[in-house]
Amino acid sequence: MGTVYLVGAGPGAPDLLTLRAAKLLAQADIVFYDALVHPETIALAEHAEKIPVGKRCGKASTAQRFINKRLVDAAQKYQIVVRLKGGDPMLFGRAQEEIEALENASIQYEIVPGITAALAASADLGISLTRRGISRSVTFVTPRVGPGEAENDWVQSVIGADTVALYMASGEAKEISARLISAGKSENTPVAIVENASLSNRRTTFSTLGNLGADIAQLELSGPALILLGEVYRQHANQLIEEVILEQLSA
Amino acid sequence: MGTVYLVGAGPGAPDLLTLRAAKLLAQADIVFYDALVHPETIALAEHAEKIPVGKRCGKASTAQRFINKRLVDAAQKYQIVVRLKGGDPMLFGRAQEEIEALENASIQYEIVPGITAALAASADLGISLTRRGISRSVTFVTPRVGPGEAENDWVQSVIGADTVALYMASGEAKEISARLISAGKSENTPVAIVENASLSNRRTTFSTLGNLGADIAQLELSGPALILLGEVYRQHANQLIEEVILEQLSA
Repeated sequence: MGTVYLVGAGPGAPDLLTLRAAKLLAQADIVFYDALVHPETIALAEHAEKIPVGKRCGKASTAQRFINKRLVDAAQKYQIVVRLKGGDPMLFGRAQEEIEALENASIQYEIVPGITAALAASADLGISLTRRGISRSVTFVTPRVGPGEAENDWVQSVIGADTVALYMASGEAKEISARLISAGKSENTPVAIVENASLSNRRTTFSTLGNLGADIAQLELSGPALILLGEVYRQHANQLIEEVILEQLSA
Repeated sequence: MGTVYLVGAGPGAPDLLTLRAAKLLAQADIVFYDALVHPETIALAEHAEKIPVGKRCGKASTAQRFINKRLVDAAQKYQIVVRLKGGDPMLFGRAQEEIEALENASIQYEIVPGITAALAASADLGISLTRRGISRSVTFVTPRVGPGEAENDWVQSVIGADTVALYMASGEAKEISARLISAGKSENTPVAIVENASLSNRRTTFSTLGNLGADIAQLELSGPALILLGEVYRQHANQLIEEVILEQLSA
């Protein structure tokens, strides 16, 4: 019986992979990878059979049960099985479902952490998530905006935190911002948006919670985007507003 | 003029460094490193002058201004200056103060993200920070327990989140748990404690918020420890309690 490694591929840039992950990929017999993993990262698995499982981190685009079964089956046949996930496996990576399947089948597993998108986005922006006197708490959350009461559970985690990273939120940004404003978050809360964090085609922009829906729509995002909120972005958000006003004045 | 790289060294294990960080260290002319960075990581900077700045991540044990000045001075003299920080620079790494000093001196800089302790601790535990139906929000926070009103700002960020990682909190665990319980967090909230995350001498244990102070004291921690709270730890915490009861019954 082999070992299954749940490996974080990091935020996108192939050189933001860990040394441990690179070594495991080089040794791997078979690799199951998510849709957002960089082709150069997958190519490190020189000798492995490479199988896309078509899952964007956290979203269930391939049936999770089917992935679980394939991991269990592969461990019967191969020594080193790598399950390569975008970002970090333990944060919005649905790792627990795979871990339980492996434990139930008595298969050895190890988890190799990866750099999550919010850290890469912060590096891209040059703005720290925490800052002395301004922010000592940071919440990472995947909001949801369905009709049920439980759908609003996540709102308090945003209200209570100094800085917030909203994952997988760009598609419903307008509704999310409306919920946060109606829960008491100021519409002037500064916002940063980072598309394709860590990649050469990344885009960063600033906004406010009140303008978030309109600004996201205008961006016409094509890659995964992270939305960041908090006072740490105020200086940059204000600067952008001033630039827009100057442009309008000179037009 | 050189470039200053603010580089995350990751949680401890040398092979949890990124490929980019390893390459930069190999090229570096001078490296300023924090106290918690692994000796093998520092040794990757083969050709560099290596200068300890004695700072445990987030704690101001060396004057921050002095570090800022040294980075600025080094960039006048060297091409590749690396500032190596435990974990990730943008999360409890006080990077913003160094970034501002570099910007004020018109020095080029880049930030290389690193794996933060909570992700490594989760990998060690085999328990995901998020979990379908149980946790969709995770707060990272450095609590403080001084007398002022502002000292309690952080409490709401803990109350509102599904899972919480308390950084640099083990020394005041008893007071922190008392504050959280008085703010309405259940004393039965499951807790995981991870000391020396990712290292071979790591220790993990489970507790509850009500027992946290006593359990931390009993651990006699010698390395950095992370305290994790939330329902995702309930199954493991209960299992531990059952084991303790069985032990007591058989004694």
